[in-house]
Amino acid sequence: MTEQVTFHLEPDERPTHWYNIVADLPTPPAPPLHPGTHQPVGPDDLTALFPPELIEQEVTGERYVEIPEAVQEVYAQYRPAPLIRARKWEEKLGTKARIYVKYEGGSPAGSHKVNTAVPQAYYNKINGINRLTTETGAGQWGTALSYACSLYDMTCEVWQVGHSFDTKPQRRTLIEVFGGKVYRSPSQDTESGRAFEEGHPGSLGIAISEAVEVAAAAPDAKYALGSVLNHVLLHQTIIGQEAVKQLEKAGETGADIVIGCAGGGSNLAGLIFPFLRENLVEGKKARLVAVEPASCPTMTRGTFAYDFGDTAGLVPLMKMYTLGHDFVPSPIHAGGLRYHGMAPLVSHVVHEGYVEPVALAQDECFAAAVEFARTQGIVAAPESSHALAQAKREVLKANEEGTEPVIVIGLSGYGLLELGAFDSYLKGNLSGDSQLSDEELATSLSTVPVIEG
Amino acid sequence: MTEQVTFHLEPDERPTHWYNIVADLPTPPAPPLHPGTHQPVGPDDLTALFPPELIEQEVTGERYVEIPEAVQEVYAQYRPAPLIRARKWEEKLGTKARIYVKYEGGSPAGSHKVNTAVPQAYYNKINGINRLTTETGAGQWGTALSYACSLYDMTCEVWQVGHSFDTKPQRRTLIEVFGGKVYRSPSQDTESGRAFEEGHPGSLGIAISEAVEVAAAAPDAKYALGSVLNHVLLHQTIIGQEAVKQLEKAGETGADIVIGCAGGGSNLAGLIFPFLRENLVEGKKARLVAVEPASCPTMTRGTFAYDFGDTAGLVPLMKMYTLGHDFVPSPIHAGGLRYHGMAPLVSHVVHEGYVEPVALAQDECFAAAVEFARTQGIVAAPESSHALAQAKREVLKANEEGTEPVIVIGLSGYGLLELGAFDSYLKGNLSGDSQLSDEELATSLSTVPVIEG
Repeated sequence: MTEQVTFHLEPDERPTHWYNIVADLPTPPAPPLHPGTHQPVGPDDLTALFPPELIEQEVTGERYVEIPEAVQEVYAQYRPAPLIRARKWEEKLGTKARIYVKYEGGSPAGSHKVNTAVPQAYYNKINGINRLTTETGAGQWGTALSYACSLYDMTCEVWQVGHSFDTKPQRRTLIEVFGGKVYRSPSQDTESGRAFEEGHPGSLGIAISEAVEVAAAAPDAKYALGSVLNHVLLHQTIIGQEAVKQLEKAGETGADIVIGCAGGGSNLAGLIFPFLRENLVEGKKARLVAVEPASCPTMTRGTFAYDFGDTAGLVPLMKMYTLGHDFVPSPIHAGGLRYHGMAPLVSHVVHEGYVEPVALAQDECFAAAVEFARTQGIVAAPESSHALAQAKREVLKANEEGTEPVIVIGLSGYGLLELGAFDSYLKGNLSGDSQLSDEELATSLSTVPVIEG
Repeated sequence: MTEQVTFHLEPDERPTHWYNIVADLPTPPAPPLHPGTHQPVGPDDLTALFPPELIEQEVTGERYVEIPEAVQEVYAQYRPAPLIRARKWEEKLGTKARIYVKYEGGSPAGSHKVNTAVPQAYYNKINGINRLTTETGAGQWGTALSYACSLYDMTCEVWQVGHSFDTKPQRRTLIEVFGGKVYRSPSQDTESGRAFEEGHPGSLGIAISEAVEVAAAAPDAKYALGSVLNHVLLHQTIIGQEAVKQLEKAGETGADIVIGCAGGGSNLAGLIFPFLRENLVEGKKARLVAVEPASCPTMTRGTFAYDFGDTAGLVPLMKMYTLGHDFVPSPIHAGGLRYHGMAPLVSHVVHEGYVEPVALAQDECFAAAVEFARTQGIVAAPESSHALAQAKREVLKANEEGTEPVIVIGLSGYGLLELGAFDSYLKGNLSGDSQLSDEELATSLSTVPVIEG
């Protein structure tokens, strides 16, 4: 019999709860602050934007939160996501390291984002909400939320970062296939958008402001965020919990290195928090690595401070690694990694030293993605390719040192709608990969507000 | 516990052999004839194009052919392909029919084609061949063969049908990501191609001629075909064998209706032959339905006769449903269904009455694909959407008649590289769906050679 290379979970082995890392952290993360009063945000401050269940999940200290039956049913249509032993890539790399890839690209909408889109749409629906607004960068979140809304017969309005809107018409079409409506951000439909000239390339910060502004003003609408917030990270822990169990089924006693890419932080958190739990609670010693692009080096060169999550300052102040909320990153191809901040929970565990941040240039990432495609047959998203590139670094180091680590890579989605970027890479025409200069960084950081906390 | 909706097979439940329907057919299909002598083709006639193992598989009467260990290892990276109970679509259709979807889009290269690309590349490799030529229509076959060749460090040269090449640059890029080299067909590099003016939209028949011509002239190269031939259909039976077992795990005693789309016939055969086996050997009575586009109605309006498989008449004459080997179909979006003929084995089982052919217009197919995407989250290839549209017809009929059939749909691949077609559909701008006129049909059929057999 052929040795198993894709590891599956039986129905009774699948997670029924999301895992909340806060319950196991020795020190709690700093609370979000009201953007006007600078006082800790209470549940009431969030009711204009979110339904009560999500607000409760945002602040809960409970270790496990039950996944609603209706959400489990949708998860069961595409989960567990495969954990694949990347044997063909291992052969190519001539390594004795054992590489496992947790692949989320087979999900509806092609990325991990649907894991939180579905519960967010569901909780809104059972609270009588039939209209959601949101932003999208690379487009994967907008796609996922559109699909989730279509499941519950809800309207979905997506503000897509201008640069992404202009260069990737297929992404807009995909969102429309799922029934969503797409606006180019900055738009002329909101005050936040009108602050910028037409044709501005946009940023996630601007798009968030627009979507929040519309939802806050409309009693029938609420807002949904695809990353950053605690409840979003919570939902994504389905990824890491599955991976922990699948790794066990693969015969491993644990991971030595776990690697994920980080934009807003939800993919990374979803993958690593269950492994961090093992480190904190069970005394395991997996190295947990967060990879960001060199052109948007939030964790490696940003400051750990309270800052706004959006450009217009409509959402709460969060203590996080930030480049400054006015930061407009270089239009690199990994659009999902171009956020000026980082999820407070991810920032906290990085700041506490539980997770190592690294920054990589995109050409190295595309090279790894092409090698991975030619061996494993999967075209990774430019975002996910950052994790592949870091894994390759770890493998080459292990080869040199003669070690045989067990490496788990989070592959957050497919790159099939980013083939234009691959074409540029293959032709040697990649653009937008400039290292952020010290001067630009200083200017951007100067916009971070000075707040005690 | 949530009821299972995606059905998996454990390693020891997976097929270790391909299934050969010829062993169970009461009457044998007609043999292929040499294009010059009109005598049955012998193995020697094929050695310029194929390695010995594939020639043996082309003519074998054995019921089961063992899958090489090395191929099983690659299959294990992405198989079993999921059998998904399409509950959300069922809810939308308000039906008590139970709809199961066998989804091949999660495979490397995004379609079922890799199931045969890998063994074809493998058998060539072990025979010392390091260069393969092929044609591609929609592009899925070229993508799959490029990936398979990259696995074995082989060169892959792909003649892509001109219309597809011109309108889908992403497909070309994807083939290049996997390491393949793409030519627009008709090209100026071959005699077969130079017979047409530059800019001609091309056809699969022309592209096959070009790829065959190059391989036949080069001692270091062989040719690989993505459909039509017996050995290709044989490899695809991994699909139906898995589906039969998965359906059993889903608690069903069998299928009432099995539906697949048919272009060259390999997807259809791969899905239905194991179900046809149950009909022939076990006395089951599943209806087996083959869906083709109304603009290329090979089985429903073609003639069952010996014809050439390619435009230049380089490959053997095959007895099959054909529209005439000069037929250039309307450039509809389901490029994989635009072949003038149909696999001889599929033609045979249709002609014997074991399989029902139907032809559908593409607007109905896109409508079904959009509804399916909004419920199940999967964007089906335009080819596969033909099976979805027929399934919807069957469901509506069942609803009317008060029956509750078990329906199995073959979803051969994803449509993520065909979003331009979906955009046209959503905007009401679909082109190229003209019903073939009786006059055009008669003209085309007049090119079918008159051969006894």
